[in-house]
Amino acid sequence: MNYFEDLTVGERVVLGSYTFTAEGIKAFAKQYDPQPFHVDEEAAKQSHFGALCASGWHTAGAAMRLIALFNQRDHAERKERGESIPKIGPSPGVRDLRWVKPVYAGDCVTYASEIRELRAGRRPEFGLVVSHVTGTNQHGELVYSAQGSVFVERRVPGPSN
Amino acid sequence: MNYFEDLTVGERVVLGSYTFTAEGIKAFAKQYDPQPFHVDEEAAKQSHFGALCASGWHTAGAAMRLIALFNQRDHAERKERGESIPKIGPSPGVRDLRWVKPVYAGDCVTYASEIRELRAGRRPEFGLVVSHVTGTNQHGELVYSAQGSVFVERRVPGPSN
Repeated sequence: MNYFEDLTVGERVVLGSYTFTAEGIKAFAKQYDPQPFHVDEEAAKQSHFGALCASGWHTAGAAMRLIALFNQRDHAERKERGESIPKIGPSPGVRDLRWVKPVYAGDCVTYASEIRELRAGRRPEFGLVVSHVTGTNQHGELVYSAQGSVFVERRVPGPSN
Repeated sequence: MNYFEDLTVGERVVLGSYTFTAEGIKAFAKQYDPQPFHVDEEAAKQSHFGALCASGWHTAGAAMRLIALFNQRDHAERKERGESIPKIGPSPGVRDLRWVKPVYAGDCVTYASEIRELRAGRRPEFGLVVSHVTGTNQHGELVYSAQGSVFVERRVPGPSN
């Protein structure tokens, strides 16, 4: 990611894709969402979902994985070019996280992120970046949507609130 | 969980506690949030966090784990009493997910859930339950807060929208 001053509202990146295998869905859900339709194919068939599907928190975790890997690649490229690397700070939270459609075993979800807001944060050395993160399955259907926020370092200290 | 008709706004349950070990924090983050301050003690010391801390998505997953286990215990008790068990449907999403304070290795977070809204959903056999889920650490500090929603079966079909 760029320094805060170099970011612009409307900037969009495709983060990458994540395939939800039956094994991956069950492994996540056993630890973090052990509901029958996420851990057991037969129970899932009897449920309103009709088949094994991923925990909504797994679809969020996949988005975060791709965001972190995207930043890693970007920072490695900056380092190679001899550029300095902005610090990425904590995230205060997420607004309007929506699980729009179920994500079934075998589905491949492509995530993208678009900057929606750039504003002052609590500390002058960081600005707050609000991004709309979306996940779209292999049929082109939106399955995941959230307004994430994160503090990103400024080149020079700016205003704070 | 009760059938939709038997739930009341203001009802609160303590879901249980979850201890974030260094191993657990790193195992989650390697898969779903591979940022330096979540996967490496030394890198975390150099970061704004000052020490290894859990991915915010891990703190959300821990909440979901305790919600699912709470419902499992509740449903087992109903079964033993010979009562029928309400179906729990999908969740449309979460509003205002806030990572209020960092969760460090060794922290024990106690989660609770309070019903905030009960309203009609898209299907007459389910009602929508909106709950405020909170996580509080061993020092009594709020670390996690979110407005979750889930469809819960009605005893008799009701209005829909």
